[in-house]
Amino acid sequence: MNHYTKFAGRFAVLLHELQGRQAVVIGHQRPDGDCIGSQVGLCRVLRSQGIDAVCMNPDPVPRRIKFLIGDTPFFQRDELPAGDRLALFTDCADHGRAGEKVKALYPAPQACFDHHVSNVGFAKRNFVDTGSAATAEVLAGVFLDADIAFDATTAQALYTGIMTDTGQFRFPSTSKRVFQLCAELVARGASPARAGQELFERESVGKLKLLEHYLSSLKFECEGRACIGILPAGIFEQVGATVEDTEGLVDYARSIEGVEVGVLIEERPGMMKASLRATHSSYRIDTVASQFNGGGHANAAGLNYPATLAEFYPQLVAALGRRLAEVDAIRQ
Amino acid sequence: MNHYTKFAGRFAVLLHELQGRQAVVIGHQRPDGDCIGSQVGLCRVLRSQGIDAVCMNPDPVPRRIKFLIGDTPFFQRDELPAGDRLALFTDCADHGRAGEKVKALYPAPQACFDHHVSNVGFAKRNFVDTGSAATAEVLAGVFLDADIAFDATTAQALYTGIMTDTGQFRFPSTSKRVFQLCAELVARGASPARAGQELFERESVGKLKLLEHYLSSLKFECEGRACIGILPAGIFEQVGATVEDTEGLVDYARSIEGVEVGVLIEERPGMMKASLRATHSSYRIDTVASQFNGGGHANAAGLNYPATLAEFYPQLVAALGRRLAEVDAIRQ
Repeated sequence: MNHYTKFAGRFAVLLHELQGRQAVVIGHQRPDGDCIGSQVGLCRVLRSQGIDAVCMNPDPVPRRIKFLIGDTPFFQRDELPAGDRLALFTDCADHGRAGEKVKALYPAPQACFDHHVSNVGFAKRNFVDTGSAATAEVLAGVFLDADIAFDATTAQALYTGIMTDTGQFRFPSTSKRVFQLCAELVARGASPARAGQELFERESVGKLKLLEHYLSSLKFECEGRACIGILPAGIFEQVGATVEDTEGLVDYARSIEGVEVGVLIEERPGMMKASLRATHSSYRIDTVASQFNGGGHANAAGLNYPATLAEFYPQLVAALGRRLAEVDAIRQ
Repeated sequence: MNHYTKFAGRFAVLLHELQGRQAVVIGHQRPDGDCIGSQVGLCRVLRSQGIDAVCMNPDPVPRRIKFLIGDTPFFQRDELPAGDRLALFTDCADHGRAGEKVKALYPAPQACFDHHVSNVGFAKRNFVDTGSAATAEVLAGVFLDADIAFDATTAQALYTGIMTDTGQFRFPSTSKRVFQLCAELVARGASPARAGQELFERESVGKLKLLEHYLSSLKFECEGRACIGILPAGIFEQVGATVEDTEGLVDYARSIEGVEVGVLIEERPGMMKASLRATHSSYRIDTVASQFNGGGHANAAGLNYPATLAEFYPQLVAALGRRLAEVDAIRQ
């Protein structure tokens, strides 16, 4: 079966070009599961083909996805030993996604593997498929098409990349091919249970306490179309949580039936930090965030605004109300 | 490809036996996604084969999985028009899982489709595969093996059954076959995004309030290896939740790092209802539930036990402690 016919010849040429060379597989800043999974998967396959490849990321690998690395040589940017390595970028929509320093270090990328819609192909050999759910999906398909054998660590890394970038198989990008490739990855040793365990079964008590406080604070505004929860100053110390533990909290507000915009406000001394999530990108919620020095994506935005809660809250509700009215007007 | 070779002949015989007869596809009390998905899937395939089949369940279909039904004839127990229908049970580990009244109405089940480890085969024709993640997985495999065409509503029902009973593809039962079958179901019109939207983006305020109360009640027992939360009597009325809103709550307890068994206790007048979830099937947590009139899967079990909380709680903790000690002994 051919998953990516268009990439087969190109990948054979790339492998040929890399023979006898050193390579570095580079991922983006603040790496996620698809980034690390793709880096590990590509690096291991290159090594299995006799190429001296290592991974490098500008940032540390997050705690919960460290398990993917195994015995893969993985370096943080400034720890990578000097050498003349050809650069392969994974999951980077553009050359600068690994940071300006990395861009300057590797001005002529040899290859790029990605699925982001904004990727215009910044490398010599581009493997960009914007119809794919994950970069790891592209890689798994290319490896299987090329009939390259790979080990369980590689399979686990690619599986986890697909699983995280499909939102656990819930995003619209979750295709027949996604499931076909996952079947092949499981056959080669990927463990869905292990991925689930490492990513979602290692919650801290502090995180659940934070969730409890967030839920207890939820209020409906804009006739129930917006739902806002507040984490008061000092809550992190009180429950033993860290700022990373806020990840995913705002989704609870957004997931309530009838709610179109969910908001998480973190109260800080003299500063309001807020995360906004809309149910659809048509809400252009970044235009609300930009009214408070913020920005972001059309359905996921954030802001830091110097104000007290008493000042900020009514302003935010008013801005949300205006935006919802605009959305209504566009729809009519 | 043959997914369930052992069932192929038996299924052909069943279809033959049902020709010209009326059939009723029965699911269990308090139905979940796999129950309703299996009922809908089996019923629709029987109807496509010219058999006058309808679905019946002792309880109402939960709000969030109603979307699976489409134009499938689906009745609650007492609304089913009288008739001489052959009974086919899906997702029922034993004859009584649909309630004693249904058991008495249909004393001689024609067939049973299931994946529960405790199912000893109570019907004339049994399609029980305890190595499967879901009853919907068994059905999808049997239908594909038999080369039976089915529509998108059937595919969506079976997909959703598999998705829910694998815990969104995270339980150890998530096999190569699970993904292969999901690929086929997506090819036949199942939408993973629709399933995700209906199941996880339509939360009620009551459910989140219930979650808040559950989180606030969590206590660690057995040296932190068990985590138990309690929903007190009257909480459903207090927060405007229904019993179906308890679904998934116990997973929060189990997901805490270091916790091996999560428990949800619902306090009812004169009755304790509990759900137990272990991080792995090797815990055989059903053997703990069975000490309190309960049962279930090796890693997910439930019970109803006539006692007060003060009587039940220490007994449960002691039983969990004994089981954890047994697990330790087996591992050594």
